[in-house]
Amino acid sequence: MKFVRFGDRGHEKPGLIDDDGNCRDLSGVIDDLAGDVLTRLRDLPITMDDLPIVEGHPRLGACVGAVGKFICIGLNYSDHAAEAGATVPPEPIIFMKASSAVCGPNDPIIIPRGSEKTDWEVELGIVIGKPAKYVSEQDALNHVAGYCVINDVYERDFQTARSGQWTKGKSCDNFGQTGPWLVTPDEVDDPQNLPMWLTVNGERMQNGSSATMIYGIAHLISYLSNFFTLHPGDIISTGTPPGVGLGQKPPRFLQPGDVVELGIEGLGTQRQDVIAD
Amino acid sequence: MKFVRFGDRGHEKPGLIDDDGNCRDLSGVIDDLAGDVLTRLRDLPITMDDLPIVEGHPRLGACVGAVGKFICIGLNYSDHAAEAGATVPPEPIIFMKASSAVCGPNDPIIIPRGSEKTDWEVELGIVIGKPAKYVSEQDALNHVAGYCVINDVYERDFQTARSGQWTKGKSCDNFGQTGPWLVTPDEVDDPQNLPMWLTVNGERMQNGSSATMIYGIAHLISYLSNFFTLHPGDIISTGTPPGVGLGQKPPRFLQPGDVVELGIEGLGTQRQDVIAD
Repeated sequence: MKFVRFGDRGHEKPGLIDDDGNCRDLSGVIDDLAGDVLTRLRDLPITMDDLPIVEGHPRLGACVGAVGKFICIGLNYSDHAAEAGATVPPEPIIFMKASSAVCGPNDPIIIPRGSEKTDWEVELGIVIGKPAKYVSEQDALNHVAGYCVINDVYERDFQTARSGQWTKGKSCDNFGQTGPWLVTPDEVDDPQNLPMWLTVNGERMQNGSSATMIYGIAHLISYLSNFFTLHPGDIISTGTPPGVGLGQKPPRFLQPGDVVELGIEGLGTQRQDVIAD
Repeated sequence: MKFVRFGDRGHEKPGLIDDDGNCRDLSGVIDDLAGDVLTRLRDLPITMDDLPIVEGHPRLGACVGAVGKFICIGLNYSDHAAEAGATVPPEPIIFMKASSAVCGPNDPIIIPRGSEKTDWEVELGIVIGKPAKYVSEQDALNHVAGYCVINDVYERDFQTARSGQWTKGKSCDNFGQTGPWLVTPDEVDDPQNLPMWLTVNGERMQNGSSATMIYGIAHLISYLSNFFTLHPGDIISTGTPPGVGLGQKPPRFLQPGDVVELGIEGLGTQRQDVIAD
């Protein structure tokens, strides 16, 4: 299944995409794609023909609601680590993005005031469906509700030149486009072999594949569950392949008027206008 | 006003403490001390005599529900920075604690598996009551719903010896005791002059005052609001005074069976049993 959330920000309704590509309204079946609902996605009493088709092209929200933790993995692609001139970390690097950064897949990238180095990162997102604490790698994938595309937007100088931890550069409003779809695991043949890409104004910047992830999905879930409970609705953004703005020669950062497009095979695409705050 | 949340975890009801120290049930007036309710705490239609007194001694939950961001400030006390051998940061150091770490003021401190260096930090917490984006220092305090006590528990080795950012050591389950009360600003004469303390097994470990904060409350709110919107229910934990376990000679960390008590003048006290996970 491909689940979506559609409608105005803060008032999204749940939906799903049928085999003909129509968006169907699920709000008669569930209140939201959030919390405990994510635990029982496979068991929802869905009869496709009973679900109204959503007319027009409403805005899409983030494909999961009520995000608790937005956990990101740093330097998790061997080819991106090489690009950044960084050594492969001995354990996964994790940091937290503010859940208030989460937005719809096509919502604009907002350049914060004072920013000169707003940058992009296409990432494979894992949405947790079942609480996970001290889980084994073998059991880890049973805790996944689905996968999605994430643009882990960040401000390079806020992140590294403004004292301390990475949070400042990673948590700005609209720095976490999430969706379009929450794709259930049965529709993803091999999440560790998904081509992914990102363009700026039509020019290909990132080209990669989840095949070059250093710490894979099952390992990350198991690893993180040693530090805290993963709850339904938590997102793990698993790191980015090469081709971020900082890695260009010379480095290139986003400007108002730019258009960013990105996607992951089987998980859909995003398109964002870049605007100033 | 002193607001509380009481009842079983995940099912807390809102309440308040009357002049006689009774807990009164507010669930007939509001659903929870969370979200938009925090914006209108001053205007709640409260007639004290109409509120039922809560019998017995129910568990207290965190004094705010649905916490979005749990933002912490690092090295924000001049005397603690000296203790840690750290220089005063040129800008506030911020990091994010998982909101899933939030728990009640007297819930146990749970030592995670593999931990040898679980440590304590009494901190003054700010709870946001009104959205704040690009606010001035002059206007900042208008965005405060109230103040509370926080134990910003952390695992020293998870934080600094396990690769990357501080998140790992700060976000474990029950590493964020919050409460007992959400105290509205009108009841706090000067939040920058509050004595605060922490004991382990009755022995005084931390002695301090919010007077030695490097970056004060108004500055922090204004500063943070340049990076992202602060929403009602967000918590800012403003740093700790000297006397953490790491600063003892020799360093001393928590063991199962220890009892931690802490408090801030006017904001109440906490008491935690330390247990193993």
